[in-house]
Amino acid sequence: MNTMVEDSVQAPQNALLPTFEHLGEGTALAQQIFEMIGHSKFFADFTREDVQRLTGFMQIYRAEPSQIIIREGDIDDYMLLIIQGKVDIVKVDSHGKQQPMTTVGPGAMIGEMSMIDGEPRFATCVALEPVTFAVVSRDSMVQIILEEPSLGAKILIKLVTLLSQRLRKTSSNLLHYMER
Amino acid sequence: MNTMVEDSVQAPQNALLPTFEHLGEGTALAQQIFEMIGHSKFFADFTREDVQRLTGFMQIYRAEPSQIIIREGDIDDYMLLIIQGKVDIVKVDSHGKQQPMTTVGPGAMIGEMSMIDGEPRFATCVALEPVTFAVVSRDSMVQIILEEPSLGAKILIKLVTLLSQRLRKTSSNLLHYMER
Repeated sequence: MNTMVEDSVQAPQNALLPTFEHLGEGTALAQQIFEMIGHSKFFADFTREDVQRLTGFMQIYRAEPSQIIIREGDIDDYMLLIIQGKVDIVKVDSHGKQQPMTTVGPGAMIGEMSMIDGEPRFATCVALEPVTFAVVSRDSMVQIILEEPSLGAKILIKLVTLLSQRLRKTSSNLLHYMER
Repeated sequence: MNTMVEDSVQAPQNALLPTFEHLGEGTALAQQIFEMIGHSKFFADFTREDVQRLTGFMQIYRAEPSQIIIREGDIDDYMLLIIQGKVDIVKVDSHGKQQPMTTVGPGAMIGEMSMIDGEPRFATCVALEPVTFAVVSRDSMVQIILEEPSLGAKILIKLVTLLSQRLRKTSSNLLHYMER
């Protein structure tokens, strides 16, 4: 399936995935992932067992400093959980200039919008230092929902919460700019 | 549970709920809801059976023209599906003035952010004409996820998709304003 909810016209390209060093399956880093989740808003209420099961659906990669992790406009079908290192998020403005949006670190989830809706990547993410991250593909997400419905629901609820919070923040900022 | 993911400090008040005319359970309006979903982005890929099951978790209400349906700052724990009529969404700016944000109609889902994250209502929604709407509470949503996991996953995926699309749009608008 191209998106989780309807047919999409564009097949995922995942063009950048082969440019990262593949460190193996998530299960191999389960302990490190579990330690990291102490700092992660995303996993705040996941049990050790939840994380253990989730790592079975993850692939771990590493990017070098300055390497592009997500490229605006790309058609990809996965989201990323940052395990180690910092990532800059930038977006090209109408003058073609890259505008910094924010910087995120371990525990942050990025790229979940395209994983879910199949639309092109909204922004570019660049490694500021060596970055280790876990990839969860759309197919894995579908598999989690089918095989582990309660874990699937937990992840989806977290994604809705995360997006709600971002939308509140972004809408407030927008209103602030519109007022001026 | 106060929110779907963690303990919240504030209990839901649902202060406006008693001000609406209660039309009964969703099952009574299943046919009308099913006809409406033809126009609804939210239910685009829901089967008749999905909708039938979902209506069992809905309560139907009616608001009069000019009546406030959602009040900014309120602590509520439900989302609304508009079945009939148009609704204005407005938000108070830093000068205390109500700024129009958008107008939505049949098929639109509103209030899902507070249903999920338990935070205060972000904006005010006012009925422009007689409005019929279905209410899905957080408790109902939890029940759907536990009792009908595949329907629960379908709704959650829809919510994530909806929020992704709004976030893409709002972020683009924000970037546009920031550039000026």
